Amino acid sequence: MTSDEARSRLQALGLDEAAVEVLHAHFEDAERRGKGGHGYSRVGWLETLGFDPSARPARVVAEPGFERWDGAGALGYLLLEEIVRGTLEAPPERSKVVVAERCFPTGVLGYWVRRVAEGGLVAALTATSPRRLPHPRGGPPLTGTNPLAIAIPSSDGPPLVADVSMGAITHGDVLEGRAAAEDLVPFGGPQAHKAFALAVGIEMLVGALAGPEPGAVLVVARPEHDPVPGLRALAGGRRLPGG
Amino acid sequence: MTSDEARSRLQALGLDEAAVEVLHAHFEDAERRGKGGHGYSRVGWLETLGFDPSARPARVVAEPGFERWDGAGALGYLLLEEIVRGTLEAPPERSKVVVAERCFPTGVLGYWVRRVAEGGLVAALTATSPRRLPHPRGGPPLTGTNPLAIAIPSSDGPPLVADVSMGAITHGDVLEGRAAAEDLVPFGGPQAHKAFALAVGIEMLVGALAGPEPGAVLVVARPEHDPVPGLRALAGGRRLPGG
Repeated sequence: MTSDEARSRLQALGLDEAAVEVLHAHFEDAERRGKGGHGYSRVGWLETLGFDPSARPARVVAEPGFERWDGAGALGYLLLEEIVRGTLEAPPERSKVVVAERCFPTGVLGYWVRRVAEGGLVAALTATSPRRLPHPRGGPPLTGTNPLAIAIPSSDGPPLVADVSMGAITHGDVLEGRAAAEDLVPFGGPQAHKAFALAVGIEMLVGALAGPEPGAVLVVARPEHDPVPGLRALAGGRRLPGG
Repeated sequence: MTSDEARSRLQALGLDEAAVEVLHAHFEDAERRGKGGHGYSRVGWLETLGFDPSARPARVVAEPGFERWDGAGALGYLLLEEIVRGTLEAPPERSKVVVAERCFPTGVLGYWVRRVAEGGLVAALTATSPRRLPHPRGGPPLTGTNPLAIAIPSSDGPPLVADVSMGAITHGDVLEGRAAAEDLVPFGGPQAHKAFALAVGIEMLVGALAGPEPGAVLVVARPEHDPVPGLRALAGGRRLPGG
């Protein structure tokens, strides 16, 4: 699918121009970073999803160090875009915890935290999604792939962005036929219990704060130090996450 | 080492009675949960550490949704104890981010978040430690083992506690001769780049907020939902983290 075709098909879904641009920018970034499973291929998937293109997220609690948002039937991409823009327009004095209820799909979490870090703030974002990972010993799916993304501004260039899903493969790999659904297990082979524990912890953290439907939790804070250049020097050319 | 011997040797280090009880309770809990590497064996290690037994942590910023603490030469255990007690005595209205500078050693992170969750709050805690994990492709150590612990209260019994280090083995395994230092690499074998990315993200998150010495970051929030009983039922007897 070309960029232009993706845009036209998003318009045909009934989304307004601003929403089309939000989704298109996310998909384009995913393509550019080699994450095709979160790129234009998702347009076809959205066409099968059945959603209200006029729904808009609502901020239901706004306090200095805490916000709660409700997707209210809008696509998760649009909710995360609102949260990122709001955070950049009015950065917290010290820190902020943001809970996003009914936030699905969330796309590439690194995309959202990178933008927050480009604005000079530290950000950590995690999100749940439909249950797809079973216990390492088998049984029904118990958790989503539950990625955790962390981004840190750096004085020597772009932010450092770590964005890790707890699955051995992505759901996009399954959607695109590159892997079988039964390969979607916690990563780590003989140590899969560690990735599973992280997936469970995130599932319950987001569940306790945002409720039973997929949601997201973002923590934002002002950095007091600039550790990334030192780490990049120490790594001596070895690839660091998101680099 | 017996419980009584551990207590006497802690007293002999010059710690006052209250501090001895804090450390002893932590080590005893670690022993009881089969984490001997964080238990009484650490008393001998503390004897080699060289620290000021009279140093006490200080809270340097206290706002409704944010706190900053400085270990100020005190053992990290004592700083985390202060943070846990303060959080339970005055729980945040919505959420709180707590940054702990110069916080080392931190022991078993699950121990601290479990207590916060027993008090009815959701807690996520992460901490850095001396650099011990190299890049999956080799080279010098770039990050600590950088555990992440998440605890969630549950209406059906004890909290769910996930506590995961990014190392394939623990530093305690090395200290106690059960493993070689070169086995202390990011977990996950062929997918070690994922655990490494998490270790790097945490290293930079804590570094940006707490500074170059090992530190910790805690996020606490009031739960709005009770997802643990449903997960426990779905898991059907399979072991969940911290269970």
